[in-house]
Amino acid sequence: MKLATLKNGSRDGALVIVSRDLTRCVSAAPVAATLQGALDRWHEVAAGLAQRSDALHAGALDDEAQAFDPQACHAPLPRAYQWADGSAYVNHVELVRRARGAEMPASFWTDPLMYQGGSDSFLDPHGDIVAGSEAHGIDFEAEVAVVTDDVPMGVTADAARTHIRLVLLVNDVSLRGLIPGELAKGFGFFQSKPSSAFAPCALTPDEFGAAWDGGRLHRPMLSFVDGQPFGKPDAGVDMTFDFGQLVAHAAKTRPLAAGTVVGSGTVSNRDADGGPGRPIAEGGLGYSCLAELRTVETLRHGAPQTPFLKFGSRVRIEMQGEDGTSLFGAIEQTVRAAG
Amino acid sequence: MKLATLKNGSRDGALVIVSRDLTRCVSAAPVAATLQGALDRWHEVAAGLAQRSDALHAGALDDEAQAFDPQACHAPLPRAYQWADGSAYVNHVELVRRARGAEMPASFWTDPLMYQGGSDSFLDPHGDIVAGSEAHGIDFEAEVAVVTDDVPMGVTADAARTHIRLVLLVNDVSLRGLIPGELAKGFGFFQSKPSSAFAPCALTPDEFGAAWDGGRLHRPMLSFVDGQPFGKPDAGVDMTFDFGQLVAHAAKTRPLAAGTVVGSGTVSNRDADGGPGRPIAEGGLGYSCLAELRTVETLRHGAPQTPFLKFGSRVRIEMQGEDGTSLFGAIEQTVRAAG
Repeated sequence: MKLATLKNGSRDGALVIVSRDLTRCVSAAPVAATLQGALDRWHEVAAGLAQRSDALHAGALDDEAQAFDPQACHAPLPRAYQWADGSAYVNHVELVRRARGAEMPASFWTDPLMYQGGSDSFLDPHGDIVAGSEAHGIDFEAEVAVVTDDVPMGVTADAARTHIRLVLLVNDVSLRGLIPGELAKGFGFFQSKPSSAFAPCALTPDEFGAAWDGGRLHRPMLSFVDGQPFGKPDAGVDMTFDFGQLVAHAAKTRPLAAGTVVGSGTVSNRDADGGPGRPIAEGGLGYSCLAELRTVETLRHGAPQTPFLKFGSRVRIEMQGEDGTSLFGAIEQTVRAAG
Repeated sequence: MKLATLKNGSRDGALVIVSRDLTRCVSAAPVAATLQGALDRWHEVAAGLAQRSDALHAGALDDEAQAFDPQACHAPLPRAYQWADGSAYVNHVELVRRARGAEMPASFWTDPLMYQGGSDSFLDPHGDIVAGSEAHGIDFEAEVAVVTDDVPMGVTADAARTHIRLVLLVNDVSLRGLIPGELAKGFGFFQSKPSSAFAPCALTPDEFGAAWDGGRLHRPMLSFVDGQPFGKPDAGVDMTFDFGQLVAHAAKTRPLAAGTVVGSGTVSNRDADGGPGRPIAEGGLGYSCLAELRTVETLRHGAPQTPFLKFGSRVRIEMQGEDGTSLFGAIEQTVRAAG
């Protein structure tokens, strides 16, 4: 089942059920008016939503169905009660630290990194990235995320996997220039992590077939900068902690409420030789953020060569099924100056 | 106006308007069913809520009014879209760092510390503090917080003050034993900050009279541990950054959505001689968390003497008006073992 949230003038939008090929949709209102409303009582509504999805695909709702327009979408959850973002591709973390000469603690391979992000104002899939200054080092981060129902405190990783209800595609916008100063203060990210954007559709795990193994999504993460292919690493590869482990980490000392969004962190694959990945232009899989390319450039050439995003820069993030159809619809954003 | 949220089996509870003496309340449903719903359209509902509050106090709603029972309350916002907690009493921060031999950067006096907290599952005013282990170093932190309406990105501190709609009383529960390891990872707090608790009532700033100066609340923060007075520092004193500055800090790179909760950090006053405060038993104003007392003990005696909270420990946090009436109602919690 694919779900999306259409803009309707309200803060939470209108929940719709989208066809697998993303061409048509039908209102979910007879079952649930909003996605948060559906997640609040998932056990009561999931079957009804699935029935309506089946009916849409069977042609039984042709009189109600409308064309699906990704530009008319909010993030699936326009606002959420929690956004907890992991950093599960430890390869990426080790690389970034190596570039600045810092050794990575061995515990990073066993104890997930996770930060609490802002969730009150997510960006639309086609929403501008509004930044105060190019000097902030504007970057994208292509990630997979999951949405849970109510998760009890102290849940195991195995049990946590059963609480995953939806899968999302994220652009975790980052202001690299603000990160060192902010992390040096010791309290984690705040100003350096402005609003994140999400692809139009939220998918139930069954939509992925064998590409979803219960805790990881095994498909290439496609990202493009100014129309040029930038990355295609596989989100299922080199993900040291799966979503079950990430959700369990988040729930260690408190329960998680329905609608909690847990992110994977920037998708990153090692190169075939075990070293850092190579750019797509050099036959590699590329990267899912500019910072990683700049890190590789620093390791190779002593300094980064690729600039961060500028006002007017365009970012596109997408994931395709084996048949080439877009799974979530695309994130397509342009960077714009504030004010 | 005093607002509270009664438990009614739903996730967001039922909004009520409470009498100034906290003895009676009346449903707010004719104007707004929930507090988040009210904040979503504050400009439309504020006058209607105030009219109902006036009618309650004038005796015009006696047929609808009921006794107000703090035990029947959720947090005013049982779940929120954002909880951003500052650390505005820099005195407290300097003290804690001094005890571990770390100098505080001078920038901490001009650039607020703030962390993004979990907001998906706040604790009821009388809700147990459930912890996995006493070894986690269970502590309370008595704080003031404000709730904003929609705040634009890049707001000034002056303009930010006009977005403050409600004031709250918070227990920002902290697991001290987990903090050093978590902060060493560099991504800020997560497991070390379990769910926070809130006093029953949310107050509009006009309720405080001259005690609210637009950015600070000038009343003693009363805390009690196991029935014994523990702290009474004035929340308006030694607050280096006021709420206007804290809200502006939070909104520097992104807008804040209506219902954002911004906390002051642990209230802390210097002693009259400029040094760390003294315990109440020694004629001082005491502290608003155990960690600060333990820090003072470390500075004085080389090691902390007061233990953290244990299973069965009780914490009470309250603030009174000049006439001794409870402003927000009390936070009254007992620590309980998980499982």
